[in-house]
Amino acid sequence: MSRMGTQTLVFDSPPFIAAQTSIVGPKEGKGPLAEWFDVILEDDLLGQQSWEMAESEMVCRAVERTLRAANLSADAAQAMLGGDLNGQIIASSFAARTLGIPFLGLYGACSTFIQALILGASLVSGGYLDNALCAASSHYCTAERQFRFPVEMGNQRPPQASWTTTACGCALLSRQAAPDALRVTCGTIGRVIDLEIKDSNHMGAAMAPAVCSCISAHFADTGRTAADYDLIATGDLGWIGRNILMELFHRDKTDMPDEKLIDCGASIFFQEQDSHAGGSGCGCVASVSCGWLMKRLQRGELKRALITGSGAMLSPISCQQGQSIPGIAYAVCIEGGAK
Amino acid sequence: MSRMGTQTLVFDSPPFIAAQTSIVGPKEGKGPLAEWFDVILEDDLLGQQSWEMAESEMVCRAVERTLRAANLSADAAQAMLGGDLNGQIIASSFAARTLGIPFLGLYGACSTFIQALILGASLVSGGYLDNALCAASSHYCTAERQFRFPVEMGNQRPPQASWTTTACGCALLSRQAAPDALRVTCGTIGRVIDLEIKDSNHMGAAMAPAVCSCISAHFADTGRTAADYDLIATGDLGWIGRNILMELFHRDKTDMPDEKLIDCGASIFFQEQDSHAGGSGCGCVASVSCGWLMKRLQRGELKRALITGSGAMLSPISCQQGQSIPGIAYAVCIEGGAK
Repeated sequence: MSRMGTQTLVFDSPPFIAAQTSIVGPKEGKGPLAEWFDVILEDDLLGQQSWEMAESEMVCRAVERTLRAANLSADAAQAMLGGDLNGQIIASSFAARTLGIPFLGLYGACSTFIQALILGASLVSGGYLDNALCAASSHYCTAERQFRFPVEMGNQRPPQASWTTTACGCALLSRQAAPDALRVTCGTIGRVIDLEIKDSNHMGAAMAPAVCSCISAHFADTGRTAADYDLIATGDLGWIGRNILMELFHRDKTDMPDEKLIDCGASIFFQEQDSHAGGSGCGCVASVSCGWLMKRLQRGELKRALITGSGAMLSPISCQQGQSIPGIAYAVCIEGGAK
Repeated sequence: MSRMGTQTLVFDSPPFIAAQTSIVGPKEGKGPLAEWFDVILEDDLLGQQSWEMAESEMVCRAVERTLRAANLSADAAQAMLGGDLNGQIIASSFAARTLGIPFLGLYGACSTFIQALILGASLVSGGYLDNALCAASSHYCTAERQFRFPVEMGNQRPPQASWTTTACGCALLSRQAAPDALRVTCGTIGRVIDLEIKDSNHMGAAMAPAVCSCISAHFADTGRTAADYDLIATGDLGWIGRNILMELFHRDKTDMPDEKLIDCGASIFFQEQDSHAGGSGCGCVASVSCGWLMKRLQRGELKRALITGSGAMLSPISCQQGQSIPGIAYAVCIEGGAK
């Protein structure tokens, strides 16, 4: 338990990732990462009466599958940290109601999963909890209703718009796990950054400055560079936002090799899947982290990755009032266990 | 850093409350607790263009006043934890944008301030941070717009409805402070409890079961009873919700002397102020804690208080879909310093 620089928490007793689950919807299940996800839903309503309850059911299933994989009962789960994009984070809070697990609700927009990992790792590494479930979800239809228009309206989307993924990721942090389990070793808390983007369809542009700030703070705090990581992932900047981020790094003279930086949102869909700028939503970085990234770390293909989540504080009310869209980002370092 | 029972975190190096600020609106400033608040606003628009930006400005002022009182610059503030009732917690996140302090956004509805104190105390006691700002706000006009109708509509309110306070509370937790500063010694994380209340005007009824569950868990975890506290405060159950809570304790055979339990929402307004069931909103427990309760602890009138915050996961969307309203609660123990 210590602190490095101005924004980075170091977990001296790094919690293990005892188990993790990724669930995605049918469209995401046809994308390039399909083979990496644990569950691909055939029906994105999950047998529920509304999209919101469907998203909540997806969170329940992700948590329950994670607990089963870790051979832990829901009663033994000490806390669930998480959130989603719905107002009043109902997907997560209704799931916590069903599951009966002590709940810490977070709102970091699409950065929520990484925010949950940092806070969860702090609580487990600090000895407050033996385990902590970190989860985040999004659903295309709930997000459209929350932020834009009902899907039934068939509203046209501009090219810079991203497609909110129907997806959920859940990781169980634990003080005890197999010695080769992944570990969360440090995390960086971002600042809210606003470069005056007002286009509510251009999330990548709204978030890229916050991601640049957070990764730069991480490097400054830890003395590391991109060379210290096998992979640096961003959450859901999409193809355009990722380019903006690279420009920002270039402007700041921060070395960031193009091949080392992957964006989850730019990776989850094929371009011909009509997702426009790429995938977004809390579930994007959550499912891609729990699927693709953690599994590659578990296989030893990567030794150490920095995963960034970013959120656009996109509020329908503040947008209608002419306010710009601030962004926030968090970063966690995940390392492979002993082989 | 340790854990007690199933839901309680014990802060072995209890963080100090180095400074705190309470700001309330004009109506709250005419209530019975007026003398205890640091700032009573004359204008609840705070010179802004919208209620939402007014609420955000209130958060900024509360944070800045707290930092001044602690003689700390914003640059030296290591994290701000907080939230509000607005979708995408824009009052808090826009304030964090202005202040430039690393931000952890929370959503616990009206329980947010207590949730922030627990997480903030964990991070400071755990050695991750030297200090943490914990803040929460609400504004009558933003909450009406978010959850009900624009105020201009003059919608009639039923007797069980509470009045969302225009208020903000901010506390600076620190590893270092004067030896007689208050300390946050433990905190209990609640579960989401739902007794199927569907009346979106009856927040007290929706939250009381979660408060009962949280306080009962706190007692079970710590082996304490009401006798171990000079005061037990609930956040914003209001007059009706407080009665429901007392009934729940009675049903469970939990000893809770009537004179020891105060409800912030039932205390902040005179009954003749037309607030109906009492005050509510994140700012209610936040401002009453930072005003009345912490100041009484600082004066030595109270030695040890348990302050509970509760939130109703009231979502306009889920209510319209016929869902009931789950509640969540958190509790923190605050103790007077050495005299």
